[in-house]
Amino acid sequence: MTPDELTHSQFDTVYNLLSFSIAAQLFTAIFLLAAQGRVLARYRQAVLMSAIVCGIAAYHYFRIFDSFKQAFVTTAVGGRGTYVQAAGQSFNEAYRYVDWVLTVPLLLTELVVVLALARKLQNSLLYRLIPASALMIGLGYPGEISGDNAVRNVFGLLSTIPFLYILYVLFVELTRSLDRQPAAVRSTVSGIRYLLLATWGVYPIAYIIPLYAPHAGAAAWVVKQGGYSVADILAKCLYGLLIYKIARVKSTADEPDFAVREGVHTDQRVRVAA
Amino acid sequence: MTPDELTHSQFDTVYNLLSFSIAAQLFTAIFLLAAQGRVLARYRQAVLMSAIVCGIAAYHYFRIFDSFKQAFVTTAVGGRGTYVQAAGQSFNEAYRYVDWVLTVPLLLTELVVVLALARKLQNSLLYRLIPASALMIGLGYPGEISGDNAVRNVFGLLSTIPFLYILYVLFVELTRSLDRQPAAVRSTVSGIRYLLLATWGVYPIAYIIPLYAPHAGAAAWVVKQGGYSVADILAKCLYGLLIYKIARVKSTADEPDFAVREGVHTDQRVRVAA
Repeated sequence: MTPDELTHSQFDTVYNLLSFSIAAQLFTAIFLLAAQGRVLARYRQAVLMSAIVCGIAAYHYFRIFDSFKQAFVTTAVGGRGTYVQAAGQSFNEAYRYVDWVLTVPLLLTELVVVLALARKLQNSLLYRLIPASALMIGLGYPGEISGDNAVRNVFGLLSTIPFLYILYVLFVELTRSLDRQPAAVRSTVSGIRYLLLATWGVYPIAYIIPLYAPHAGAAAWVVKQGGYSVADILAKCLYGLLIYKIARVKSTADEPDFAVREGVHTDQRVRVAA
Repeated sequence: MTPDELTHSQFDTVYNLLSFSIAAQLFTAIFLLAAQGRVLARYRQAVLMSAIVCGIAAYHYFRIFDSFKQAFVTTAVGGRGTYVQAAGQSFNEAYRYVDWVLTVPLLLTELVVVLALARKLQNSLLYRLIPASALMIGLGYPGEISGDNAVRNVFGLLSTIPFLYILYVLFVELTRSLDRQPAAVRSTVSGIRYLLLATWGVYPIAYIIPLYAPHAGAAAWVVKQGGYSVADILAKCLYGLLIYKIARVKSTADEPDFAVREGVHTDQRVRVAA
């Protein structure tokens, strides 16, 4: 629940966090778009998708930022004053779900696509990951917009089932298909899965805060906004940059000419081949 | 502290300075993006990063510009009048820190990446420069938002420690790895370090103005905004263009074909080889 009142510093902190997220996501998108030529053609789809995910997220943060600014008005006549909720406006928190329902299936697709697996295996993974992720977010939404804790509980639990299934596919099924990947790719994929686990873990924690700390107040709410922002930056920007790294490593491993042209250092080439 | 009142000319001066910064940063970013193909593939990462830094800075100056415009309202009923602070609005000066925490680690990374050092040496430099620069900015922030001079003093001093460490790494450690660089690169790197020293020196001066001249008034504040803007333009745009120059010089030195294709003049080629 959005708090009724924020201090001037709390308002500024959320303002800065949301704008920081816009900057990180927008410029990661631009970087990845501009850098697509720096991987072999076969890996460009994954890099482009990473760019699009960051771009979509940046667009939604522009909306979240505007919604936040409109939801609060200053009480100050002179001096700094505090911020209270504007009549008839509310900070549209559920808006984040619109972002996630677009970006999360794309994030999972990027990861599968950049590995350039056999077509049959790739489709098998995608036909399970994409519906599961859409279900996970779709089931979370009714709980998020409900003011009723029982409803929030039920949908939170339901949403956890596809989440666990996604983890199963990523950590068990995907592992079986990593044998043929270069060593540096295996370790980056491993890192990327833990990044997903750690950042996606922030969302259920933020989701249950209203259940177990309904009167946590404005300070807890500011922390929650910070948690969402940082998790979104890591799960989109850092994740996208790691996809780019995998694409670079695989390009280097696939074609020695690429490594020479791109000036990849000999020690790195040896590490890739290991 | 933002002054309570600005004359019409003072308001216009800050307005113009902030807009000038947007123009310089936005179009340096566009230039560098468009020019990435004019260096060898191995140096494009550094040029792209320079473009991204200028882009991020331009985005933040748009926000700073908006914050400035909203923070002041005219007193004029007829005639020109003056500008006073709008109720409940304040010019969000701490916002600059959001920009720096993204751009400063990237600026240092560009410099290391464009030199195309051995991977081990590159990582060793980055693992020290990036955390130190994040620490420098993170420690400055609590002092900047505090109204208490003692707090401002303590955090200012703490922030100076990582700053000095960065200078040590750049001026002592980096120097050892410049031996294998072309002569023109050595002198440009040397120039770029002094540019960093000179422009970064503006920030602590602006930081301590409220400590030692608390009643310096609106005119001093306008000078401070000018100092920040010029320092940001030099530290991002000029710096980025120098990174581009290093990338061009190294491309020419690496491949004679590149020099011919790009029509680099013979005397310049000779100078590079020297």
